[in-house]
Amino acid sequence: MSQTASQSPAVPDPSTLPALRVAVLGAGTVGAEVLRLIAQQGDDLAHRIGGRLEVIGISVRDRSKDRGEHVPAALLTDDPSALVREADLVIEVMGGIEPARSLLLEAMAHGASVVTANKALLAQDGAALYEAADDHGVDLYFEAAVAGAIPLVRPVRESLAGDRIQRVLGIVNGTTNYILDAMTRTGLGFQEALTSAQELGYAEADPTADIEGHDAAAKASILASLAFHSRVRLADVHCEGITDVSAQDIAAAARMGRTIKLLSIVERIEEENGERISARVYPALIPHTHPLASVSEAYNAVFIEADAAGSLMFYGQGAGGAPTASAIMGDVVSAARARVRGGVGPRESRYAELELIPLEELRSAFYVSLTVQDRPGVLAEIAGTLSGHGISISTIHQELIDSGADGQEGRAHIGIATHRALESAMTASLDMFSSTATVLSIDSVLRIEGE
Amino acid sequence: MSQTASQSPAVPDPSTLPALRVAVLGAGTVGAEVLRLIAQQGDDLAHRIGGRLEVIGISVRDRSKDRGEHVPAALLTDDPSALVREADLVIEVMGGIEPARSLLLEAMAHGASVVTANKALLAQDGAALYEAADDHGVDLYFEAAVAGAIPLVRPVRESLAGDRIQRVLGIVNGTTNYILDAMTRTGLGFQEALTSAQELGYAEADPTADIEGHDAAAKASILASLAFHSRVRLADVHCEGITDVSAQDIAAAARMGRTIKLLSIVERIEEENGERISARVYPALIPHTHPLASVSEAYNAVFIEADAAGSLMFYGQGAGGAPTASAIMGDVVSAARARVRGGVGPRESRYAELELIPLEELRSAFYVSLTVQDRPGVLAEIAGTLSGHGISISTIHQELIDSGADGQEGRAHIGIATHRALESAMTASLDMFSSTATVLSIDSVLRIEGE
Repeated sequence: MSQTASQSPAVPDPSTLPALRVAVLGAGTVGAEVLRLIAQQGDDLAHRIGGRLEVIGISVRDRSKDRGEHVPAALLTDDPSALVREADLVIEVMGGIEPARSLLLEAMAHGASVVTANKALLAQDGAALYEAADDHGVDLYFEAAVAGAIPLVRPVRESLAGDRIQRVLGIVNGTTNYILDAMTRTGLGFQEALTSAQELGYAEADPTADIEGHDAAAKASILASLAFHSRVRLADVHCEGITDVSAQDIAAAARMGRTIKLLSIVERIEEENGERISARVYPALIPHTHPLASVSEAYNAVFIEADAAGSLMFYGQGAGGAPTASAIMGDVVSAARARVRGGVGPRESRYAELELIPLEELRSAFYVSLTVQDRPGVLAEIAGTLSGHGISISTIHQELIDSGADGQEGRAHIGIATHRALESAMTASLDMFSSTATVLSIDSVLRIEGE
Repeated sequence: MSQTASQSPAVPDPSTLPALRVAVLGAGTVGAEVLRLIAQQGDDLAHRIGGRLEVIGISVRDRSKDRGEHVPAALLTDDPSALVREADLVIEVMGGIEPARSLLLEAMAHGASVVTANKALLAQDGAALYEAADDHGVDLYFEAAVAGAIPLVRPVRESLAGDRIQRVLGIVNGTTNYILDAMTRTGLGFQEALTSAQELGYAEADPTADIEGHDAAAKASILASLAFHSRVRLADVHCEGITDVSAQDIAAAARMGRTIKLLSIVERIEEENGERISARVYPALIPHTHPLASVSEAYNAVFIEADAAGSLMFYGQGAGGAPTASAIMGDVVSAARARVRGGVGPRESRYAELELIPLEELRSAFYVSLTVQDRPGVLAEIAGTLSGHGISISTIHQELIDSGADGQEGRAHIGIATHRALESAMTASLDMFSSTATVLSIDSVLRIEGE
């Protein structure tokens, strides 16, 4: 098989290519992997960029800590502000809102392009970052902020830029997927599964951001902003975590041929007088046959539905040092190419400014689990309350808990799956259940998706 | 939920944005969909680009044919050469090598950026197109040439540009997947399944490019070039089609818990003295549990394995007017943005110039189906031939065809799955089978992948 090298223009010696000064903010797991990739692929990256990446400093809180061979002590600094002012490119992997936000604004004001994995910052104050990038003619890239190594930001804001996205639905938090998957496989309760995930390094010591859905909500806000050309902030995303999902819910879902996943859903809703959008995160029952049902452990997977493209699915590792670093380095190459060759990357696109639809105006199918008095007429009362609010039942499962003794009343469990109904109608039904003696407790209310 | 529109800078009136002159070459299914998207999304596209797309002409062979409302007769021309000289952006969806090649070179020489879906042209003469883009400082985009609506070119050449891709393995031809899927579901033979696919519009009247694997091979050459930063042309891709896959092969695969798919595989192979690459297309047995096994009908799915990112999967519609048009329009927006804002898109990256490994030096697992004499010692002879060439057997299945009558010798079928072995060793074994009286016929030789 002949090669064309001899006829082609010579490949330049990478050492002759112009240098780009790179500042790295943060040297945790992801930062160390970014530095490893830069060190190990130096010449490759230089060829791909048309310029050499020269790491001029790595800002850390503790300069005395040994961080391995790819994080040279000589480059460590505790003055990130001085560092970013000298850089052409700033890679931010420190996380948190401050000082990350101020440092990135300062970096852009001094002419640096920025690559960040900071979903919380983007979700909370992305507008300020976008505006700074615009004002100073620099680039802002953030592929690593959503779904780790899976290319998602770029497909949404570039590949599908000529299409009309209707919906993005996916599993974008690996920790909660690991926990729910463990509960499904083993029958464990939430707390036991969380503890096991923490022991295995899949959940952090303080798991709040993951298990309460905040991390998935931040990603939903980023995806919604890109998909619908509107500003959607973290506060705009309806967010429910997985802490209330019980072993009983998982078992009930399985009985109905479904499994429970924490879903991030952003959606365009066409209405008579135009359109609104929705961004929400909650645990939901999906059919076993749905491709997302088989996404196991800490993997992420995302569906995108667009008018012309149809359904697309993306699957891969959503977290971890190396996968996140891969996404960051793709952005670094893009930003660096633009430095060398001129031009700017995609800007914020928010011309549509679509309004968010309040949750109560959405329509969903529900799974409701109740503990009720075990006596004739209870089922009719429950069904009557639902139908009185325009909610029709798709399946119902009743099971005796105890038949009562010593003058105590018997108790039964009722699990109901409904057809799609207004959220406000379900809220009103639940209010009635709360105030009737028939219903002893409302154990779970979960949505059903992906039918 | 409040919106920030009031505090934000005003969104510009799209009619005030600069115009970009767009020429469309070809107005078949894809061309008509591209024109529909431009017409229906005019203002949206203008906002996303920062400029208006103005279609200045559509070149067709037959101007008299009615092509529907989105292909206005007034814009039709049979002088594509004059048309491309006036354009800022040329969308090529005519297909074929000439005159597409000359027109795109002419367009770029006159300063137009090019978006093409022409996989055959790229695979055969991509270098000439890349060089023209370089010489004239224009962009060359071709997302639609591989896997239709699935973002694949952009992820490989941009998202993973900071990583090291080891392997791309996938189903990138919908027609052959439809045929193999139909054979698997129904037990039909190849010819019947092809006829049914043609009746349903999944295969063309002349299906050669699909069923012989040429289309998949063109896509493999494009993916290999991008993934390995080397020039890989169509002629460099080892290509076997699906015309010899029989109902018996599908049944034998099923017995072994496997299904047969036409795979495009491009791979980096690390060796003692460096590395070489492989690009190949052939029907192969994959386990039922492999995610590609469940890709049905005309869908496409592609796995990418990269050092840092790990395994990624992409899934969606690989062909059809609207999905292909979606991919084209993403490229159009990118090329148009660069026109308005300055800068150039990714260039050809072929600095690595890796050599291709000849097929005979590759190692694969095989499935071999033989008709043999039914007599003692045959199995030992077959196994001995294979082991004499260093090939070890993983499973073997023997079945009597007929026990012989009227002095005729009995015949048996032997199906053998091997462990990984050199292609050259298998070729040598097959040569011996051809020359021994024991083996009456070699019915099939297929590779086993995805284990």
